[in-house]
Formats: sequence, structure tokens, C-alpha cells
Amino acid sequence: MELNDLTHQTGEWLRGTGPFAHIVLSSRIRLARNFANGPFTNRSQKKDLEEVLSAVDIAIQGIDFFKAATFFRLNELDNIDRQFLVERHLMSHDHAASPQGKGLIVSPEEVLSVMVNEEDHLRIQVMQSGFNLDGTWEIINSIDNSLSEKLPFAFLPEWGFLTACPTNTGTAMRGSVMLHLPALVMTRQINKVLMAISKLSFASRGFYGEGTQAVGNFYQISNQVSLGHSELDIIQNINGLIRQIVEQEEQARQALLVQNRPVLEDKICRAWGTLRNARIISSQETIELLSMVRLGVDVGIIRELAPKTMNELFIMIQPAHLQKIEGKKLNTLERDTKRAQVIREKLNGEA
Amino acid sequence: MELNDLTHQTGEWLRGTGPFAHIVLSSRIRLARNFANGPFTNRSQKKDLEEVLSAVDIAIQGIDFFKAATFFRLNELDNIDRQFLVERHLMSHDHAASPQGKGLIVSPEEVLSVMVNEEDHLRIQVMQSGFNLDGTWEIINSIDNSLSEKLPFAFLPEWGFLTACPTNTGTAMRGSVMLHLPALVMTRQINKVLMAISKLSFASRGFYGEGTQAVGNFYQISNQVSLGHSELDIIQNINGLIRQIVEQEEQARQALLVQNRPVLEDKICRAWGTLRNARIISSQETIELLSMVRLGVDVGIIRELAPKTMNELFIMIQPAHLQKIEGKKLNTLERDTKRAQVIREKLNGEA
Repeated sequence: MELNDLTHQTGEWLRGTGPFAHIVLSSRIRLARNFANGPFTNRSQKKDLEEVLSAVDIAIQGIDFFKAATFFRLNELDNIDRQFLVERHLMSHDHAASPQGKGLIVSPEEVLSVMVNEEDHLRIQVMQSGFNLDGTWEIINSIDNSLSEKLPFAFLPEWGFLTACPTNTGTAMRGSVMLHLPALVMTRQINKVLMAISKLSFASRGFYGEGTQAVGNFYQISNQVSLGHSELDIIQNINGLIRQIVEQEEQARQALLVQNRPVLEDKICRAWGTLRNARIISSQETIELLSMVRLGVDVGIIRELAPKTMNELFIMIQPAHLQKIEGKKLNTLERDTKRAQVIREKLNGEA
Repeated sequence: MELNDLTHQTGEWLRGTGPFAHIVLSSRIRLARNFANGPFTNRSQKKDLEEVLSAVDIAIQGIDFFKAATFFRLNELDNIDRQFLVERHLMSHDHAASPQGKGLIVSPEEVLSVMVNEEDHLRIQVMQSGFNLDGTWEIINSIDNSLSEKLPFAFLPEWGFLTACPTNTGTAMRGSVMLHLPALVMTRQINKVLMAISKLSFASRGFYGEGTQAVGNFYQISNQVSLGHSELDIIQNINGLIRQIVEQEEQARQALLVQNRPVLEDKICRAWGTLRNARIISSQETIELLSMVRLGVDVGIIRELAPKTMNELFIMIQPAHLQKIEGKKLNTLERDTKRAQVIREKLNGEA
């Protein structure tokens, strides 16, 4: 896989279809695994990290799912390429920040990625389009089974999988769903929803992952508890919560359309006009306008745009993507200009 | 002339051509005249006003320039129609406000209009496209000559023409020019210019006439002094001033383009996108955006729009015009919605 080939496309998980795709962008499950026969990465020497990288490299050779996957050694990538992989949600900021002894495995359509030597030896991640944690679980469970046949994972019957951070111990699973909730934001119900999420021990984050603010009305909801419940129980819990939020967002959209359609139309159409005409635009403004346009597509006010195109834009407008498209480093104004150009080409090509 | 036929067109003076039309929308001269044989209108009885109306009606019959003109009795028009004529710059707010005993004569292409029984018995106005006070003077002078052969105008050799307000006495002439000065506003030079104008005894008003604020970077500059100079001297004075302002605006535009073209392009293109997509828009925002679009056309950033179309929009987006287009009274939200629709139809039809 050549990173340069990816600049104008997105992972399969952003194709914009799947259950409840008008509200749920994507579903993601991540499993943490550590080798039983060596120190955790935060206590590892360079040699230990290298041994893990080699062991993983060998183990995945025989597994079907990894056949066409690419194994990146992060210290062989430059800053922009590493940032590029973060922007595609394939690895964490932390993983990119100190690349020595670290690896990343990515399957061709970006359904699967594995961070090697992040906080845990392995962080296995599978993403799917739409609201589909069950399907995501089936895939990642089968990958985990194959890997555990070849690698000695640290596991205790009474504790489950052992992890560097005790909050992950047990299933070591985090399931998350990316939601687009513009109507709950516009009708000022979002804070009530977020408070309920927090009380139920779920976490809420922004589109761009841990530590990021919610922008453009995107919320990534995930379980906090990984101990004391089976994976399937946790997934059922998330599913139940997400179904409720989806229903509330749908009701809020209906209410907006019934009570205030002209104002909503105006907001949506102005966003659509600005995106197709701006010459300089920040990523924050872009996300906010794309959120409105996305809502416009979902409620039928904008008809000439595919959800996939919007999803591609969410990814492409990020700094490293713009710099890879341009083929060189760009300062802020240059990025804001390039971003506006990429958006115009993408949206006017569609219209 | 049927007022309803005018809703989608503008006066000939807004055709968008003529000298320096990229900065000077239009030139206007207005002459005040009063009958020697009767009281000023503010001291008139109903009978006196009627006599003036009749005398004018008879006098214009034999004058070529009035052949196809329409003579409106203002009390026969409803509120919206009167407001409609104000919006077309054919008469003053005051004239529309108390219609009893008042008249308005309008030539077919709206080059000439005559308010009868406003503050003075006659307020004769001629408008031309672009920077053309000389041509405007030729037309209005010939009309004034023809009228004075038939009507006994109050005139004293030592004072000139007598008027209800002493500030108009003498030539009783006001020449004005409508300027579009976005670059002087953006480069913050406009206040210096306006101060100089005021020191030289010229007045500055907004697009919508006396007492209105400048919106959308439009400034109407006119002479204050009408006594002690000949009409041609006054016009030469205005011309000299306007030429300087035009030059300063041109320099400011060049400076903006050289120093800050990307930001200017962004502002202009966003305005263009918003106008073609908004579903609800106030007249204030419209004028501001049209000002940016007009600048875009003038400096070649927007190529697909005729100046005439923009000028038509400046007129059509006003409340009475929107209500005549719709054929019924509209409240504020309805007007803002209709305005957005009219703009979209006009601009998307052009594009």
C-alpha cells in the first residue's frame, strides 16, 4: 500500500452506508493485547520492542485477514505521513508522536489496523460503516482468535486480558460509535444527552479522537467499563444507548423540520453555498458547514451530494492530507487556501 | 405606464454603463421651481395645490420630453405603489408620506421625474447612468427651458430661483453622484474622504437617499451650495471632487489586489455563494453582499454577471418591490424569504 494513493479516498468504513448511516457514521471496536512473555511497552528496552515487532510480523504471515496488509515501521515514515495515518483514524496521536520501535499494520481498505507497541503491545482496531458493532465484533473476534493461536497473550482467568492501564483490563475492549447529532445540538438537548451518557459510564469525544472537542456536531460515544462483563454484553449496552440517541436525534430533526423548516433550509443552503465558493477556509469552519450540508442531505434538502463524498471531505481537509495532496509542507494560510480548493473541486464536481 | 410592468426592470439610469461605471453608478440633477403667482406648498390650500397640478398637467402637454410620460396623482395610488416609486428613486419619502394634492410625473425609461407640490411646486429630476453630470445637465436644462416658457417661475435677478427653503435659493440645483467605494471602506480611508467632502461643503448620503446611512459601501455625494455660482460652475466643482474620489478608490482597489488578493477573493466569492444559496436574507445583508459581488465583477474576479443585473437587484430587493412582485402584502420574514428567492432566480439565471 502506498500512502500517496490514499490521499483522495477514504477507508471502507467511511463509505456512508450501513444501518442508520444518516446519523451513525461508523462503528469501531478496539482490543488491547499484550504478550505474556515480556515487559509492557512502557517498561521495554529497544530490543524488547524489536522482538514484539518481529513476532507480530511473523504471526500475521499465516493469517488470511493480513494477507494484503501493510506493516509500517513508524520510524521509517516522516512526520506528515505519520500525521496522515492519525488523520485517517488508523492510529493514535501518541503512537505518532514517538515513533521509535513502533509499528502499524493496515489492511487495504482500512477496515483493520493494528498499532504495535503503543501503550499495549497490540491495539487491534476494526471499523465499519454505519451502526454495526455486531458485524464489527464478528470481524475483530475472528482476527483476535487467529492472532491468539500464534501469540502468547497475557490473560488470567479471574481478570481477563492484562493491560498496561488497569482501566482496560478484562475484555480490554473499547467499542465506539461516531454519531452526527446536529438537531440535538440545535434544539439544545445535547447537554442532557451527554450527561446521561456520562452517568451510564460511557465516554463522549469529538470527531478527531481522544482529547478533542466535539466539532461539527460529531460525537464519538464509547464504553468506559471493560471489566466484569462479556464483550457481547458491553456491545449490547452500547447498542441500547445508541439506539436511544439515534431515536432522539430523529425526533429532533422532525421537530426542526416541522417547526422551523425555512430557517433550517437557509442555514443548510448557506453552508452549501459557502463551501462551494470560499477561497480560504479553516478546518473548524469546514466541519461546521459540512455538518449542516450533511444534515441537508439526510433530510432531503440537498439532493445532489453523496454521503461518501462528504465523508471523504472530513478526512481530506485535515492538515497532513492537504500537504500530501499538494506534495509539500504548507503553512496555515496555504492550508486554508488548499482546503478551500479541495472542497470546491470535490463539491462542484459532484453538483 | 403601468407600475406593475416595472417590477422586474430598472430605470435607464441603472443600466450599468457610462463613464467610470465601475465606481460611479449614476448621476442625478434636481432643480427646484416655484410658481410666481401663488403661495409655496407649505402655505397652500387644497385649491392652490389643485391649481398647480392642473397648470403643470396642461404645460407638459406641448413639451416633447413629456410626451410618453405618466402623471400620477399620489392620492390615487396605494401605500405600496407610492413606496415602490420612492424605492425607484423617483420621488422622496416625504412626498409619499402625505399624498394629498401631490403629483409625480415619470418618463417611460425613468430618466426624468417631476415631483409636483413637494416642498417646492416642482422638483425636476434627471438621472443618467455612470459619471455624466454634463449630459444630465444638458437634458434637464432643456426641460427646464421648455417648462419656463409655459409656467411663470418665481425668479429674482439678484437672488435667482426662489425656493421654500432658503438653502436651495439661487440655482435651486442639486447635482449628485452615486459612488461605490468598497476599497476605500476596506482600507479604512473612507472617513478621511468623507471629512474632506464635508469641509468642501458637499453632502454625503446613503444609497436610499436623504437621512439614510451608507450601506453596502454606497455613497451619494451632492453639492450643498446653490447660491452665488452658476449651474455649470457647481457641476464643474462636483466633477472635480468626484474625479479625485474615483482615483482614490481605483488606487485602493489596486492596493487591495496587490497586497491581499486571496483574502479579497475569498470575501467576494463567499458573498457570491451566499447570495445564490440563502433562503432568508435581510436587505441590509443583501446590499453588503451585492457590494462585494459588484467589486468582484469590477476587478474581474466574478465574470459571469452583468452590472445591469446587480443594479436591478439593488432596486428589486426593497420591500415594496418584493410585495409588488408577490402581488400581496408581506411581513418581514415573508419579505426576507421572497428577497432570497428573487436574488437566486436572478443570479442563478445569469450564471
